Amino acid sequence: MADEALVKNKQVVLKNYVNAGLPKESDMEIKEKSIQLKVPEGTKDAILVKNLYLSCDPYMRNRMKKLEDSYVPSFEPGSPISGYGVAKVVDSNHPEYKNGDLVWGTTGWEEYSLLTAPGLLFKIQHTDLPLTYYTGLLGMAGMTAYTGFYEICTPKKGEYVYVSAASGAVGQLVGQFAKLLGCYVVGSAGSKEKIDLLKNKFGFDEAFNYKEEPDLDAALKRYFPEGIDIYFENVGGKMLDAVLLNMRVHGRIAVCGMISQYNNDKPEATHNLMYIIPKRVRMQGFIVSDFYHLYPKYLEMVIPSIKEGKITYIEDVAEGIESAPTALIGLFIGRNVGKQLVVVARD
Amino acid sequence: MADEALVKNKQVVLKNYVNAGLPKESDMEIKEKSIQLKVPEGTKDAILVKNLYLSCDPYMRNRMKKLEDSYVPSFEPGSPISGYGVAKVVDSNHPEYKNGDLVWGTTGWEEYSLLTAPGLLFKIQHTDLPLTYYTGLLGMAGMTAYTGFYEICTPKKGEYVYVSAASGAVGQLVGQFAKLLGCYVVGSAGSKEKIDLLKNKFGFDEAFNYKEEPDLDAALKRYFPEGIDIYFENVGGKMLDAVLLNMRVHGRIAVCGMISQYNNDKPEATHNLMYIIPKRVRMQGFIVSDFYHLYPKYLEMVIPSIKEGKITYIEDVAEGIESAPTALIGLFIGRNVGKQLVVVARD
Repeated sequence: MADEALVKNKQVVLKNYVNAGLPKESDMEIKEKSIQLKVPEGTKDAILVKNLYLSCDPYMRNRMKKLEDSYVPSFEPGSPISGYGVAKVVDSNHPEYKNGDLVWGTTGWEEYSLLTAPGLLFKIQHTDLPLTYYTGLLGMAGMTAYTGFYEICTPKKGEYVYVSAASGAVGQLVGQFAKLLGCYVVGSAGSKEKIDLLKNKFGFDEAFNYKEEPDLDAALKRYFPEGIDIYFENVGGKMLDAVLLNMRVHGRIAVCGMISQYNNDKPEATHNLMYIIPKRVRMQGFIVSDFYHLYPKYLEMVIPSIKEGKITYIEDVAEGIESAPTALIGLFIGRNVGKQLVVVARD
Repeated sequence: MADEALVKNKQVVLKNYVNAGLPKESDMEIKEKSIQLKVPEGTKDAILVKNLYLSCDPYMRNRMKKLEDSYVPSFEPGSPISGYGVAKVVDSNHPEYKNGDLVWGTTGWEEYSLLTAPGLLFKIQHTDLPLTYYTGLLGMAGMTAYTGFYEICTPKKGEYVYVSAASGAVGQLVGQFAKLLGCYVVGSAGSKEKIDLLKNKFGFDEAFNYKEEPDLDAALKRYFPEGIDIYFENVGGKMLDAVLLNMRVHGRIAVCGMISQYNNDKPEATHNLMYIIPKRVRMQGFIVSDFYHLYPKYLEMVIPSIKEGKITYIEDVAEGIESAPTALIGLFIGRNVGKQLVVVARD
């Protein structure tokens, strides 16, 4: 065994499954372990990374539940949770990675991680953009917005686009992509601050605070008197029901997530599904990882747009791994403004 | 005005809108009017037809409601209802039709109809097959099964296909098309007689009586231990909810109709829509009339299969226009076995 010093390794550990209800900070705890900054002998094709930025994502809520048959496994109580992040390679015996490489992808919520399946990582080539962007705009959220909008919604110039959770990590990008294509775009979010951002920062044509609309159907009819061609679904529940009443013929609904439902014991009912028949609506669930082969194409599109100032991105930055549980839980009550991430270390 | 004798013209008239609940025979009445068997002078491009066979179709239920914004207009109380049928031209001043032509398409529920928009008609070319088939197998129901299955479901050999209302006008064909393609096909229906037909006449791999299954999820898991690739949705409600729990990754749901819902005042809720995300399900509503340009292609496929005995079709034939209200209402309680049609005249 190599004679390397142990370093402290703080971890965010799930204490118990949270099957229903809003997760609390006390459902997680910070534990201090120690780790050797070297891939252990006998472990093949592994890398040891220093985690820099962690990404808080809605899908993580479901990993806190005890699920039998999920497309991502449940977190393991007593172990550090995992998620997307940006990290730096500090040791490697994997032929494709060397010390100092920057990567984004699936890592542990801890200061250092030993990654034995680096197939889930992307090497970061463009380091002239903020590294934090690889938790969002240039990472999973960006790819979600890109593939959900372009691949699932098959948008056309001039179409009427509605985005819920529109100031979030994905929504803010869907709206901007739709504007770049020449669509009419309306977003909804849950605070005045977010609505201002949508209109003034991201260039949505209109935006409204869903919490101030007692009748969502009426709100949608106000903003879409001719109906909705494309709905980018992030929330589910009552919002989806109102949207179904307002779709245009041959409309498309990309179902990216249903964050309003993740804390419910039983999912809220949808009543208006029947409308997809007369309106010939295509409604499609998708998972971004099915589309990662398009990542180079996405970067080719989005990096020039970022550099030309045509795409902007708002991040909500929590400092220190100790703040990670609070930051994650904030997603489910809409506390974050923009992409929620956690700084573990800056380099 | 031409000096032609008037003939009697019995009509099926809707008395009042039926907005909720099961329609009753007394919501319709047979009225006897009279008609001249000639296109009136001053009416351009019209045809006068003798109606032979009328088609009873589930979508007609919605036309009995007072709807503001429907893809087909509501019936008009006090007037004869309309629907698909097979008819013979008895007079025409339309350049494309001449006396004796046989047509199928939208006509009145009456003995004779003056049709001023024969664009909604198809001329019948293949008269060596039973004319009644043009109310179903070779008409709208056939095209619905064909386009719903091939165009919307994009099926592949070996896939697991589930059809609800499987012995109906559309379902029996979807199952047979799927078997011809080499799929595993299970159907559900509401009586022992229908289940026997599915298995012994239409060649479904399995079939079950949904009325005898207290737990539809368990029933589907029994017949689809590996899950469902394609669901051809005819019924909605609880069945859809159970199906959503059993879809395979990248599954497709063609939403053709939701007959279980048409008599409800408020549509029944769907609870399991969220599953379309992890399973990446595409769910698509469709209307057959969007696909009528494919009719010649359909005939090319289906006519040889019928002649070779590879496709069979069961019809439930009601005799006489007086029986039309009862026949139509029978659809909504599942009284019909196979395609429900009404004989007005045999030639």
